[in-house]
Amino acid sequence: MTLDLDLLPDGGVPWLDASGPDAAIVLSTRIRLARNLQGHVFTPRAGDGQRDEILTMVVAASRATPRLEQAVVINVDQLARLERQLLHERHLISKELAGLEGPTGVRHGAALLTTGDVGVMINEEDHVRLQVLMSGFAPSRAYAELERVDRELGGYVPFAFHPEFGYLTSCPTNAGTGLRASVLIHLPGLVLTKEIAKVLQGLTQVGLTFRGLYGEGSEVVGNFFQLSNQTTLGKSEEELLDHLGKIVRQVITYELQAREVLQRNAPTVIADKVWRAYGLLRYARSLSFDETMNLLSGVRLGVGLNLIGDLSVYTLNKLLVFSQPAHVARRAERALTDPDLPAIRADFVRALLDDDAQRRPRNGPAAEA
Amino acid sequence: MTLDLDLLPDGGVPWLDASGPDAAIVLSTRIRLARNLQGHVFTPRAGDGQRDEILTMVVAASRATPRLEQAVVINVDQLARLERQLLHERHLISKELAGLEGPTGVRHGAALLTTGDVGVMINEEDHVRLQVLMSGFAPSRAYAELERVDRELGGYVPFAFHPEFGYLTSCPTNAGTGLRASVLIHLPGLVLTKEIAKVLQGLTQVGLTFRGLYGEGSEVVGNFFQLSNQTTLGKSEEELLDHLGKIVRQVITYELQAREVLQRNAPTVIADKVWRAYGLLRYARSLSFDETMNLLSGVRLGVGLNLIGDLSVYTLNKLLVFSQPAHVARRAERALTDPDLPAIRADFVRALLDDDAQRRPRNGPAAEA
Repeated sequence: MTLDLDLLPDGGVPWLDASGPDAAIVLSTRIRLARNLQGHVFTPRAGDGQRDEILTMVVAASRATPRLEQAVVINVDQLARLERQLLHERHLISKELAGLEGPTGVRHGAALLTTGDVGVMINEEDHVRLQVLMSGFAPSRAYAELERVDRELGGYVPFAFHPEFGYLTSCPTNAGTGLRASVLIHLPGLVLTKEIAKVLQGLTQVGLTFRGLYGEGSEVVGNFFQLSNQTTLGKSEEELLDHLGKIVRQVITYELQAREVLQRNAPTVIADKVWRAYGLLRYARSLSFDETMNLLSGVRLGVGLNLIGDLSVYTLNKLLVFSQPAHVARRAERALTDPDLPAIRADFVRALLDDDAQRRPRNGPAAEA
Repeated sequence: MTLDLDLLPDGGVPWLDASGPDAAIVLSTRIRLARNLQGHVFTPRAGDGQRDEILTMVVAASRATPRLEQAVVINVDQLARLERQLLHERHLISKELAGLEGPTGVRHGAALLTTGDVGVMINEEDHVRLQVLMSGFAPSRAYAELERVDRELGGYVPFAFHPEFGYLTSCPTNAGTGLRASVLIHLPGLVLTKEIAKVLQGLTQVGLTFRGLYGEGSEVVGNFFQLSNQTTLGKSEEELLDHLGKIVRQVITYELQAREVLQRNAPTVIADKVWRAYGLLRYARSLSFDETMNLLSGVRLGVGLNLIGDLSVYTLNKLLVFSQPAHVARRAERALTDPDLPAIRADFVRALLDDDAQRRPRNGPAAEA
């Protein structure tokens, strides 16, 4: 089985269009609900036959669920590693479902059901993980969508629920609501003013946690952070989302203040940083992934500060997603270990930026100084 | 007295046009002859009155000399430091005549007589230093020009000459021919292949010496070297020039071979280096002088390798000269210590490159990959 991304509505990444609120700073909002089917052993301890059964049940139920009726089913366990990594890079499946680490690799029966914005991971750590991914900072809208899917699907495959503990999950840290909401947020201002450590420390004190671009255990690159709730138990979904929403709103305010301070105190330093990043992306012939993320961070800051005129956030988002290793390798039909990937990445980045620049007035960047 | 550079034919830098042989690698050829007037005490030991006398005599003689008839006279000792440095940055006067270092500063009676390409420094370490500066690698043509001036001027003010030692000079290391020929040469290939140390060592073994952009004691920046003869005594002018010519020709061959090796073995690394340099010059908002020279070196290599299409060597030469500290400061009417100079330099570099790019097809650099 080969992954055909064209089958996915919007290629599975509709949030790239940056149509959501505050989309220049908050790239996307993601919420997932961990669910398990009543009377079935948890996935990590289930045999192949039991996982097949779960898969069959969930797919059948989704066909009867209006919101999932048109969903594409991808049998992740039948994909090559490169394609599983690609789905992970699009944040469509977790590292766990993709089998990218751990001794077992990809699990028998691992599958993704997706409509592009709404997805169901099957046979992940839990039987079912419902997920919604939206552009910008949109926790309420995202949850409303997800809640509906949860209700509809749960009508066909009853979820294990305990009156005292709430939804039961394979790992107890997810029990209760089973909810994790996270935002992918870009905080270059706080990094440059060196306030980021203080802010991140503050987050953990109020029950939030932060991660890098690829979730748990991943490093922070390009000043992109995933902020999410730490606890899932003892509060209602609405309380959890309300709390996360307030804190993220505050982080956005801090970030904007930091940018103002930078613009006021060191305008040349900031403009220089931003335009150098643009110049390198536009002309380099070899780019590592980490450097690309760091340069994109600089350019994104420049767009946020109106230093770089009409470069679109859509283009920046595309660059972010499509310059990831599996994306670059797959586009060029190369292995992930191919030494030419940095050159291929640079060609792609240049072509996209050149295309964007074509649509701008001739001497845009240089004349705006 | 204020320096009016517009009075100088071609602003005193006709060699910028890159019209000479091998001008992409050898920026300029410079030859100077040290001369002293018979029966007059050497400049360092002369009093103000004696220096005035030398100045008057040489200027009067130059008026009767066809080649110097139209020369502009600049009383260097009446210029502000910034303007003296500016003349030095154009290689029109030595650091010594400009009084840029040493305890005495600028010397009374220090003056420059110049037609743009031919100049006479008066009251330098010697009474008279004749100098010619030409585009590219042109030692024979340069010397033919200079020899004529030497002969003509020497007809009016007889030079101190000893039948055994040749021309007498203030410092014995210049006695004999009084000739120093030097080429300003760009050797990025030899630097990148790490062969430069071997080549420079070889030069000293055959009686040549190397210096940085600003002559004796100056550091090498941007892979620009001044190669010149070490000895002035015991050989004829023709022998000295012939020897220098042969060696420089060989260095050019080595440099071209090194570039070929780089292009063959590491084309992506080289293209990346070259285009990153271009991207930074084109977009940076703050540039130190040293960084500018290093980036210009990368871009110049790119032009030499035909990686960067039709960026002219003339533009590169202008960038080299006009982004020097005194040039930047004077253009913006700022002090040499002004903290804004790096930003002003970046604006100038960008404007010049933008102007050059306007004259190229729309998607020149990015599409040439």
